[in-house]
Amino acid sequence: PATYDPNAAPGFGFRARDAVLPPAPAGRRHKVTLTITEKVIEVAPGVRQRAWTYNGTLPGPVLRGKVGDTFTVTLVNKGSTGHSIDFHASQVAPDRKMRTIEPGEQLTYAFTAERAGAFMYHCGSAPALHHIGNGMYGAIIIDPPNLTEVDQEFVVVQSELALGPQDGLAKLSKLYTADYDAVAFNGYAGQYRFAPLTATAGKRTRIWVLDAGPSAPSAFHVVGTVFDTVFKDGGYTVRPGDAAGGGAQVLDLAPSQGGFAEFTFAEPGEYAMVSHRFADAARGATGLFKVTS
Amino acid sequence: PATYDPNAAPGFGFRARDAVLPPAPAGRRHKVTLTITEKVIEVAPGVRQRAWTYNGTLPGPVLRGKVGDTFTVTLVNKGSTGHSIDFHASQVAPDRKMRTIEPGEQLTYAFTAERAGAFMYHCGSAPALHHIGNGMYGAIIIDPPNLTEVDQEFVVVQSELALGPQDGLAKLSKLYTADYDAVAFNGYAGQYRFAPLTATAGKRTRIWVLDAGPSAPSAFHVVGTVFDTVFKDGGYTVRPGDAAGGGAQVLDLAPSQGGFAEFTFAEPGEYAMVSHRFADAARGATGLFKVTS
Amino acid sequence: PATYDPNAAPGFGFRARDAVLPPAPAGRRHKVTLTITEKVIEVAPGVRQRAWTYNGTLPGPVLRGKVGDTFTVTLVNKGSTGHSIDFHASQVAPDRKMRTIEPGEQLTYAFTAERAGAFMYHCGSAPALHHIGNGMYGAIIIDPPNLTEVDQEFVVVQSELALGPQDGLAKLSKLYTADYDAVAFNGYAGQYRFAPLTATAGKRTRIWVLDAGPSAPSAFHVVGTVFDTVFKDGGYTVRPGDAAGGGAQVLDLAPSQGGFAEFTFAEPGEYAMVSHRFADAARGATGLFKVTS
Ligand SMILES: [Cu+2]
Ligand SMILES: [Cu+2]
Ligand SMILES: [Cu+2]
Ligand SMILES: [Cu+2]
Ligand SMILES: [Cu+2]
Ligand SMILES: [Cu+2]
Ligand code: NA
Ligand code: NA
Ligand code: NA
Ligand code: NA
Ligand code: NA
Ligand code: NA
Ligand SMILES: [Zn+2]
Ligand SMILES: [Zn+2]
Ligand SMILES: [Zn+2]
Ligand SMILES: [Zn+2]
Ligand SMILES: [Zn+2]
Ligand SMILES: [Zn+2]
Ligand SMILES: [Zn+2]
Ligand SMILES: [Zn+2]
Ligand SMILES: [Zn+2]
Repeated sequence: PATYDPNAAPGFGFRARDAVLPPAPAGRRHKVTLTITEKVIEVAPGVRQRAWTYNGTLPGPVLRGKVGDTFTVTLVNKGSTGHSIDFHASQVAPDRKMRTIEPGEQLTYAFTAERAGAFMYHCGSAPALHHIGNGMYGAIIIDPPNLTEVDQEFVVVQSELALGPQDGLAKLSKLYTADYDAVAFNGYAGQYRFAPLTATAGKRTRIWVLDAGPSAPSAFHVVGTVFDTVFKDGGYTVRPGDAAGGGAQVLDLAPSQGGFAEFTFAEPGEYAMVSHRFADAARGATGLFKVTS
Repeated sequence: PATYDPNAAPGFGFRARDAVLPPAPAGRRHKVTLTITEKVIEVAPGVRQRAWTYNGTLPGPVLRGKVGDTFTVTLVNKGSTGHSIDFHASQVAPDRKMRTIEPGEQLTYAFTAERAGAFMYHCGSAPALHHIGNGMYGAIIIDPPNLTEVDQEFVVVQSELALGPQDGLAKLSKLYTADYDAVAFNGYAGQYRFAPLTATAGKRTRIWVLDAGPSAPSAFHVVGTVFDTVFKDGGYTVRPGDAAGGGAQVLDLAPSQGGFAEFTFAEPGEYAMVSHRFADAARGATGLFKVTS
Repeated sequence: PATYDPNAAPGFGFRARDAVLPPAPAGRRHKVTLTITEKVIEVAPGVRQRAWTYNGTLPGPVLRGKVGDTFTVTLVNKGSTGHSIDFHASQVAPDRKMRTIEPGEQLTYAFTAERAGAFMYHCGSAPALHHIGNGMYGAIIIDPPNLTEVDQEFVVVQSELALGPQDGLAKLSKLYTADYDAVAFNGYAGQYRFAPLTATAGKRTRIWVLDAGPSAPSAFHVVGTVFDTVFKDGGYTVRPGDAAGGGAQVLDLAPSQGGFAEFTFAEPGEYAMVSHRFADAARGATGLFKVTS
């Protein structure tokens, strides 16, 4: 199988995925087409896997809306096996809307997002462990009403890589025992170490985090900051006005949980973000912010 | 050792454990006898283990009461080694009430449940890892005051199986490294895939979940639903009237934590429940609801 | 490599680390010198490792203050390689204050603690997994305003031991896969089994817990008690006056999270504390309280 080298750097042509999160679009009805394709993708320096993707990337595209918005998703299967889509923000009968469609087929999946949060979407076709492990996951963000304004907003999706052969599929036997080789932020191990994110000191910052798993938790931390606001899977756990005056060092997420953390970079400098489950940080769950004044 | 086959199905005579949770009995004083026996039990399709049980089943019986209720438990040891019982809902000196009794002995253990939650009970005799791993665990549910009424209520206890020889005890060396073979809901891997639970669309549903471990967390999720209420180990994290309007996709439990999630199945259909720690779902932490109108 | 024997007992000369936590000092400005040294330390019965320490112990000293206090830390590197310090309670540019200093160098690191919690500090020099694994971690506690008075207060820092050779460094290859041999409370596996902590029945007790990792979560539980107050990484999750009347059996912490639990020992006796991730309890995450009237 392919192996992860924590000391390798990406080759010529590396392009990082944009982690900046734009606001929800103004309209309350969202139409999206997700086309499933198979594609060899670099997931770590020098490591390529045959990914199963929504719209050609892993994670799939980030969707965003507000409580009460409707999403109409057309799923088109241009892959070589059956696939499906399961939106955790939706309340629908899985055996109908989330059903598996064969190559060449399509389905339309409509739902109203009634609750706020950072929800996972993913392929649920059996074995779902393999479909998630091969790249079929993404985030749909539903803003809480009265979400406070911040100056800069990012999104990070964490996932594990259980490497199969170079240019091959993920190794299912390793996925069964949560015995993964590397951990990615937004689909690439150590991505933002090689292409740091940029931010401004003294400005309020929000990072949405989804732990796509398939099996490991995340302990999301930003070195040199303290979170004064944490929203975890549907509820606030820390807010600036709390009588306890508490701050959080970690947003802890079980697999498929999502949420956000808010904080302010106090001064210009270089700030790492990690999963503080440090074995995972050492295997790629790490990145950098370059913060300027 | 015995092996878990995720594709096997139970043989003739399989009877699923009832997951429906009746209301707490009317009285405020509960008398219970728990008799410890050793018994070969099927824990996955074709896989039998020599279990150490409370009242002949694993998990042991679900107990339920209200804050302020007293429980008087008589523990009778008909096993072949020393055993004990530790109720997490009780506040007592462990070296007296939770003491180990030898085969042929019995003790009476009385306590008042002063706090609400879904608490674990288990044998704490050394090595407790083996006694829990062999089946000596269960749930005692203490309702919060003003618990809202729901239309249907279920209970799921998650536990890991570290398989020893067919018809033998759990493998202690695997338990030491949390290297388990399968994961059970209510004592049998994949149980409610083979005997789906039944529920009604449009009705409020509550599922109590206890993670008995001994070592793995649970990320309890019901496909096609969003939890509008989550109570985790003593406190609400999400409620319908929250200003944030949040919904949860997962009830995340550390080993021996318990709680509940509430939601409504939006329409008839088949809905899976899983631990979204997907390596565990693939090893048996999965089941189905058949939802009718 | 050295091996952990769960049945071994410490030899002559064993001295347990004091787990009693004194109140924060009266002053609002704290001056601390942390001197990094290398030292062979016993971390489990008969097991010695070459530790990298802050002030000669692992964990390093517990620091404590109030929201708004300033800490001025002088870090002195008397080790044989580059080291650093990262306070999770601080909001500073990591590439300056948390920078690596070479043997023979020192730096002064000042910060104001603006938020309450039980924060981790640790060496962040690459590979941080090895520096934490070798002993470079500790707790800094920032009291919330209006923290209620209790009668007895303790602090427990949990960490994993990935054993290298006797008298040698931790095994980095095991740290990379979170494949540890033992788990310590306050730096020594099973420490307070051998030297039980003492407490008084009927008195309010608070235990601060920090999970230093580097990679495993903690499920902190005290047998025979129910927590009526839990503060987890910046926010309360359970309080005595909650309408739900809930109690917690576990304080669940992701790596580098901290918090506290409050409860009362109901009667005299022996009470164990454990991580209820039971594979970890069996490998040393366990201790005892001797409770008298
Ligand atoms: Cu698929
Ligand atoms: Cu899912
Ligand atoms: Cu027993
Ligand atoms: Cu227990
Ligand atoms: Cu160091
Ligand atoms: Cu850190
Ligand atoms: Na949590
Ligand atoms: Na980093
Ligand atoms: Na958690
Ligand atoms: Na299922
Ligand atoms: Na938690
Ligand atoms: Na103990
Ligand atoms: Zn798929
Ligand atoms: Zn497959
Ligand atoms: Zn840090
Ligand atoms: Zn037992
Ligand atoms: Zn045994
Ligand atoms: Zn789902
Ligand atoms: Zn260091
Ligand atoms: Zn090293
Ligand atoms: Zn207990």
